[in-house]
Amino acid sequence: MTYSEKALIFCISVNLKFILVHINFQSKRKEGNICGKKPTYSVRMRASRNAPHEQGGKHISGGERLITYSGLQEAVDGLLHKGFSHSRGIPDFMQIQLESINEPIETIRPLPVAFHQSDTPEKGQAIARKLLQKAGIPPHMIEKAYENIAEYAEARGAVLFDIRAGERIDGRGNRGVRVSRMDWPSHDFQKWAFTHNMPENSRIKEAHAIAAKVCAHPGIIAELCWSDDPDYITGYVAAKKLGYQRIAKMKNAGDESGCRIFFTDGSIDTESCIHFLEKQPVFIQREENI
Amino acid sequence: MTYSEKALIFCISVNLKFILVHINFQSKRKEGNICGKKPTYSVRMRASRNAPHEQGGKHISGGERLITYSGLQEAVDGLLHKGFSHSRGIPDFMQIQLESINEPIETIRPLPVAFHQSDTPEKGQAIARKLLQKAGIPPHMIEKAYENIAEYAEARGAVLFDIRAGERIDGRGNRGVRVSRMDWPSHDFQKWAFTHNMPENSRIKEAHAIAAKVCAHPGIIAELCWSDDPDYITGYVAAKKLGYQRIAKMKNAGDESGCRIFFTDGSIDTESCIHFLEKQPVFIQREENI
Repeated sequence: MTYSEKALIFCISVNLKFILVHINFQSKRKEGNICGKKPTYSVRMRASRNAPHEQGGKHISGGERLITYSGLQEAVDGLLHKGFSHSRGIPDFMQIQLESINEPIETIRPLPVAFHQSDTPEKGQAIARKLLQKAGIPPHMIEKAYENIAEYAEARGAVLFDIRAGERIDGRGNRGVRVSRMDWPSHDFQKWAFTHNMPENSRIKEAHAIAAKVCAHPGIIAELCWSDDPDYITGYVAAKKLGYQRIAKMKNAGDESGCRIFFTDGSIDTESCIHFLEKQPVFIQREENI
Repeated sequence: MTYSEKALIFCISVNLKFILVHINFQSKRKEGNICGKKPTYSVRMRASRNAPHEQGGKHISGGERLITYSGLQEAVDGLLHKGFSHSRGIPDFMQIQLESINEPIETIRPLPVAFHQSDTPEKGQAIARKLLQKAGIPPHMIEKAYENIAEYAEARGAVLFDIRAGERIDGRGNRGVRVSRMDWPSHDFQKWAFTHNMPENSRIKEAHAIAAKVCAHPGIIAELCWSDDPDYITGYVAAKKLGYQRIAKMKNAGDESGCRIFFTDGSIDTESCIHFLEKQPVFIQREENI
């Protein structure tokens, strides 16, 4: 037997092992265990350090997927890997929750994109303030929100800021509001990233998916956001009127404080807004596919 | 290029993809992200249907692993697969939690094994009663426990039954006590299964790991257990004095009610006993390796 034939047999045996594991996981679907309509699952991950979040642990990472049964293992592995790959540190607690989605899934288009160069956080934040004003938020209310940004950064999730009352209204304290149950099918995102000359990575995909879902709520005027990842200094302002306005530098490298504020127009029913953000399942999809 | 050489190149490319994913997950460990002492993680899974357990959902499956970082992905995948492969049904809720273990891990030996044939549940239960008596539990207290078995079967976890007071003492209601943070490294389990002519499957491994940990508590005299899996009718009585006494038939096929009772000797501090069962990390290991 030639060397290449021996090597071939070895490779085939290794492949078979992976294929058998894969088939086994898939066969559950075909065996009728998952009969009829293909269920879609919301998969959510949160990771923290020193304790679970609810016991005051430091937030390390989070992630969301909306995926059919056949993609579950890959989604769970991806979130497991994401949780252990964040520059905020190695978690000593992680929770991955799966829930099947029983209500209709809404399809939302990604926001148009623009980019603003800024070589200092001050310039970046100045651009953000102008964009928020352009979105329709009165300057004095923008300043009021900015005054509380350090406090709002303590929340794990986002905060809702009412631009009429000039105050935070979500009532969620350190937990904040976690935008959840949304995803952007990879094939569609890849085409979008190619067309818009955007980096094809999960951070961009997740940020744009969140912004599109948030801006789809009728009572949310704009979102101001930059990451709590000390290695990631780019942020954005997103609004129905403006689309997704990326701003190159919104903080200094090494800074672990982030920001996620949803500016609401004073007309919303807070609980139903939070329900939409946390519970309404949403797929992001480019116009061509709808 | 011969056919086998072309096929070889194809196989090698497929393998490379898997190897790269694998290396990527391992490299986090070597990059110093996980430096120094190799952390061990407790990985726990619970799956339910119609709602999460805490909202009254039907318990479908659960699982435990104690594993170092490099085995995390395989452990999570295994538990994900286990949760979706239970004859009690397809879950629509699953939670997988990981927590790093910071306290010393105790090593406990597996219990010696004996097998009792029984072709009817009645015979099986009669054998169980005799074994419990042999373990030191007064007959009238055994009957008192049996009178409540249907109610105790409602609990997701185990119940603690005090043989002096003749009553349940864990106070955990439907939640019960979940024996957790134990595992039996596969290579050691495989050698044990081979030596004891036992089936080498995860159900046997988990049942023996739980029984060994439970019987290691000084105040627990015996465990009475059969599964809530309608397809699995074998059960056991385990005790320090008796070892692990498998009983062929303890219920009829199709019956979804299970039982897990820990008989305590009336001397225990309930909270510290529950803490041991739920929090003390334990590896099961055959004597030769200690």
